Amino acid sequence: MPRFRDTQMGSKPSGAPRVVEPKNVVRMVDEAGIGALNRARELGICTVFDRFVAQQPQCGFGYKGICCRICIAGPCRIKAGDGPGSRGICGATAYTIVARYIARLIAGGAASHSDHGRHLAYVLSKVAAGNLADYQVTDPAKLVWLAGRLGLDPTGKDHLTLAAEVARTALNDFSKHDEEPCLFLDSTITAARRRKFDQTNIYPRAIDREVVNVLAGTTMGMDADPVNIIFQGLRTALADYTGMQISTDLSDVLFGTPQPVVSEANLGVLDPQQVNIAVHGHNPLVSLMLVEAARKLKTEAVAVGASGINLVGICCTGNEMLMRAGVKMAANVASQELVLMTGVVDAMVVDVQCIMSSLPVICNCFHTKMFTTNWVAKIPGAEHMAFNEATAQADAEHMIREAIHAFKNRDREKVTLFEIKNQVVAGFSLEALYGLFGAIDPETPVKVLTDAILAGKIKGVCLFAGCNNLKSFQDASHLGIVKELAKNDVFLVATGCSAGAFAKAGLLNAAAVEAYAGPGLKAFLKELEIANQGKLEAGLPLIFHMGSCVDNVRAMNLCTDMANQLGVDVPKVPFVASAPEAMHEKAVAIGSWGVAMGLPVHVGAMPPIEGSELVYGLTTQIAADVFGGHFIFEMDDQVASEKLLAALEYRTWKLGVHHQMKEKYATALYQGY
Amino acid sequence: MPRFRDTQMGSKPSGAPRVVEPKNVVRMVDEAGIGALNRARELGICTVFDRFVAQQPQCGFGYKGICCRICIAGPCRIKAGDGPGSRGICGATAYTIVARYIARLIAGGAASHSDHGRHLAYVLSKVAAGNLADYQVTDPAKLVWLAGRLGLDPTGKDHLTLAAEVARTALNDFSKHDEEPCLFLDSTITAARRRKFDQTNIYPRAIDREVVNVLAGTTMGMDADPVNIIFQGLRTALADYTGMQISTDLSDVLFGTPQPVVSEANLGVLDPQQVNIAVHGHNPLVSLMLVEAARKLKTEAVAVGASGINLVGICCTGNEMLMRAGVKMAANVASQELVLMTGVVDAMVVDVQCIMSSLPVICNCFHTKMFTTNWVAKIPGAEHMAFNEATAQADAEHMIREAIHAFKNRDREKVTLFEIKNQVVAGFSLEALYGLFGAIDPETPVKVLTDAILAGKIKGVCLFAGCNNLKSFQDASHLGIVKELAKNDVFLVATGCSAGAFAKAGLLNAAAVEAYAGPGLKAFLKELEIANQGKLEAGLPLIFHMGSCVDNVRAMNLCTDMANQLGVDVPKVPFVASAPEAMHEKAVAIGSWGVAMGLPVHVGAMPPIEGSELVYGLTTQIAADVFGGHFIFEMDDQVASEKLLAALEYRTWKLGVHHQMKEKYATALYQGY
Repeated sequence: MPRFRDTQMGSKPSGAPRVVEPKNVVRMVDEAGIGALNRARELGICTVFDRFVAQQPQCGFGYKGICCRICIAGPCRIKAGDGPGSRGICGATAYTIVARYIARLIAGGAASHSDHGRHLAYVLSKVAAGNLADYQVTDPAKLVWLAGRLGLDPTGKDHLTLAAEVARTALNDFSKHDEEPCLFLDSTITAARRRKFDQTNIYPRAIDREVVNVLAGTTMGMDADPVNIIFQGLRTALADYTGMQISTDLSDVLFGTPQPVVSEANLGVLDPQQVNIAVHGHNPLVSLMLVEAARKLKTEAVAVGASGINLVGICCTGNEMLMRAGVKMAANVASQELVLMTGVVDAMVVDVQCIMSSLPVICNCFHTKMFTTNWVAKIPGAEHMAFNEATAQADAEHMIREAIHAFKNRDREKVTLFEIKNQVVAGFSLEALYGLFGAIDPETPVKVLTDAILAGKIKGVCLFAGCNNLKSFQDASHLGIVKELAKNDVFLVATGCSAGAFAKAGLLNAAAVEAYAGPGLKAFLKELEIANQGKLEAGLPLIFHMGSCVDNVRAMNLCTDMANQLGVDVPKVPFVASAPEAMHEKAVAIGSWGVAMGLPVHVGAMPPIEGSELVYGLTTQIAADVFGGHFIFEMDDQVASEKLLAALEYRTWKLGVHHQMKEKYATALYQGY
Repeated sequence: MPRFRDTQMGSKPSGAPRVVEPKNVVRMVDEAGIGALNRARELGICTVFDRFVAQQPQCGFGYKGICCRICIAGPCRIKAGDGPGSRGICGATAYTIVARYIARLIAGGAASHSDHGRHLAYVLSKVAAGNLADYQVTDPAKLVWLAGRLGLDPTGKDHLTLAAEVARTALNDFSKHDEEPCLFLDSTITAARRRKFDQTNIYPRAIDREVVNVLAGTTMGMDADPVNIIFQGLRTALADYTGMQISTDLSDVLFGTPQPVVSEANLGVLDPQQVNIAVHGHNPLVSLMLVEAARKLKTEAVAVGASGINLVGICCTGNEMLMRAGVKMAANVASQELVLMTGVVDAMVVDVQCIMSSLPVICNCFHTKMFTTNWVAKIPGAEHMAFNEATAQADAEHMIREAIHAFKNRDREKVTLFEIKNQVVAGFSLEALYGLFGAIDPETPVKVLTDAILAGKIKGVCLFAGCNNLKSFQDASHLGIVKELAKNDVFLVATGCSAGAFAKAGLLNAAAVEAYAGPGLKAFLKELEIANQGKLEAGLPLIFHMGSCVDNVRAMNLCTDMANQLGVDVPKVPFVASAPEAMHEKAVAIGSWGVAMGLPVHVGAMPPIEGSELVYGLTTQIAADVFGGHFIFEMDDQVASEKLLAALEYRTWKLGVHHQMKEKYATALYQGY
């Protein structure tokens, strides 16, 4: 089989970044954020934008992944091409050290997502047992459908019985001791992927076991074979997928499957007349309880002179609240501190993940009350409210009341508003998307999408995901790449802080379609809109917001359905993913399962991998041969866009959509497939 | 409550080491090893002794623990006391970064030990199901006793039924979803520890869950509270203990509980007349199969001109084979490469953990065949023999035959012998120790030990454990401290590569008692010897070898029995531990549970903790207040010995053994209790 490798297209950025810039440079593109950052500097408040610059230059060994601290004989660094300095003390070479660290990053991500899922599974168990008054099965239809997907027989069972069975099935995926597939993974992939994972021996046996196993396999004196280590890492990444699928499915059962919703985003959503509570983190267990409590306690807020209670979301808790309750979105991850610069945030409530530990210091510069709520995510300086699901509503009300109390202490001198906000149309669970497609084809909604691709109307699908990483300017790459893809008629979906970037910038609404969509995409969206006439007053957005970062599985489920509809496996589906600013270990895990699933995955922030040509090659090239998916590490937005488009066009060309195929992609210029 | 803190005794070493020394310095004290290292240098072969020097100076940020690579926005380093450089990009301060990294080291250790235990539990399950012909319940008495300890009713059950139940109970400790205690932990601790772990909320719920939980809790934007993080770390350390207890118990069931055995140690155990096979790693599943296969295939070796097959052990696989089959011990961890310099090692077989990935390169300098056997511990350059328990005996025979074949290719020119070896008396499982004590007091053997302490004959017990870490000269601190303690009448037990150091140096035999024991210890051992007249021809050793590093639980079980016998909790038992050269993540985990259990734990190699005064203080002082155990970080052997003796004397004094109490310890000079 001839293989086409293109050093031009697959060109590799190299070397540690040496960001040298004036201290006051503003590493972002969002006007509201820039205003808030300037305000922070006026007040002498240090934020992530300053800390990033203070960390420059970053350690080149760590940046390239050739620093090892896995035992306490170290730290070791690969210092030389040969001789004793070319290996760590234990003899580990660069490729071993790089591979081990990448595998451990994946383990950190899988641990995060699965802990999120486990928490929900425990809550669902308790709900089923009648032990939690404040939570319930909100979406019985999803529960029944899910039970069916998992192979459970729902016949004659009431919802609580079924919920107990589903929860037990989820917990079993965490902890079983057999070699059978994890059901939340197995029930959502193509048959061909199942065979591929079996053949390559990366089928996870149980979520926890894989995380522990990869950790054990990367301790001092264990696996030194980079290929083997990376494959263990991929197995752990599939365990991550499993945990995410559990998180998303059970969230839907407990809190309802998102449906289209209209809201607003950016710092302008803070309302000086209201009690403002910023809610930040990831898990809906706390945040959706706050939504209810805020509604209930409005009169108490009015009693102290506020016009109401205004919850605003940050990061993925923001996404959860936006998707399910239309709560306004204030910020994505890198601007979490900036929200406080308004001086009108009366309380900040956080749960888990991506919470900067600088927040309590900044809250203390204002009247803002800060609560941590999870027992493994405490922050010195914040008040820890030991949130208990058994007293969830009362706990939520307590925090709301504290915010109302803090409102009275608001320092009017310190109020500075940044009044930019944009309309957001969100809430696109897969069910919601299929609701739209179903207006055209109620039997097989996904066919509307695949037919449009086969007809050459749209070029495929791109999922935008991931975080902010100040190695580039905040949001800039998300916006730059998405606009290029929109222009080129790519159907766009987004999650997490990528969706947050789009929300803030006004790309999640109908106006953005007018401004940025290419003719094919515009026509496709118009067609959808007409078919759904009357249902969506605000119209359809340029990019479909599918949820928080655990909800990347929704996008993957869409891709799997497309594969099944097209009668091919995932590597032939014109579906790509981009994480222009990947930052968290979760992002590394997600990107890795994306590759194992068969997706080309663009990453715009360099993971610590350049210290080994071999591992770099594994992830960018060998992966394509084995799994059909591969990483595209590309820091340049324009080049990244071209590579993503090339990957889509290559796949559409392979599907026989010739008229869309540009000459250059037909002639051996595209790396992998 | 007045608290006595002594900055003199608790003085803290500080700063990153700057080892500046001529390149050819010999960082060890063992004559045979020195010979082998000189030979390596003659041959131009690079070993760990060269790589250690090549890594100097080591990164000061990493050494102090203030380097963070937990997300890919980093690497970050704490560069300044205040301002933006005093925090990582995410806002994490030094104490958060240090605590997170320590917690992750513990997680790595817990993952290692528990994977070892899990492997044994699966094998025991399969044995019970009649699916593995080559393994069996070798020690039914231990099985029945263990079942009883776990609360299983053995009445009327055959051994396989009981084995199935014990295996299921072990697997349940890995994966259960309730908040009940893990049985392998719960059944081996004092009632007071149980309460302590409950009160401090560090009781592990399930081994895998704790590892995953601590990993999730230390990702970017999670726990920033160093106290909370360290407590999660301690919970994970107790999960580590649980995995170790499973490993030790199930090994005894499958391979027999060790009984006293006489053997030899050091490079002189390699026999140029025989086929030599060095076996290295940790898990007895492969190595004890090799022992059997070697016996069986002796005639094949003789047929090619060898006088027989000589298995020699390295590291903890060496300990497993020594303890259960009297196999000779060639080296502990830092001299694993040096064994090859003899030129007479025909094959090296490794399983898991502490295996230097430089080994295949060195094997290639000789005729030596190298096999890896575990699917998560492959090393490029070694042949991977996918060892399968279902075909264990055949797999073992295959490797032995390959060694016999390699023997024929031995290059006589390259043979260099280092003929030092020492007699070793080992095999002291707790059962074996109690066998000795039982000759005096068959009802309550442990009372022999506690009575000797109460009578002031011996000063208490010290467990020597842990690895080699070339931050000091190999073995030097093990030997230096143990001799000081022996002189001061401390009853000595040892495991792992500490026991390896003693074995090599000739301290595990009766001659060492004459040479090094103080009068009290000498008298106590003589008394034991007389009571056991005729049973142990070689006499009793100075230090009792309790097994490999997972067998540290045997020593802890002894301490627990002593506590129960004395009617106090562990923190009042004159029992200390020392890991003079801790290196592996496993050592960090073991030391941490030692502290939680209530032991003063000396560590002679600095973990990456000095970057935070707070975390340093937590582990060395606050821990003593909360758990009664604490770390003693001390690099100076003499001072370390004094601190260990002080801890023992303080505890004996509290038990009312006044006549042994030196004035200085009675007057507020001892830190903690």
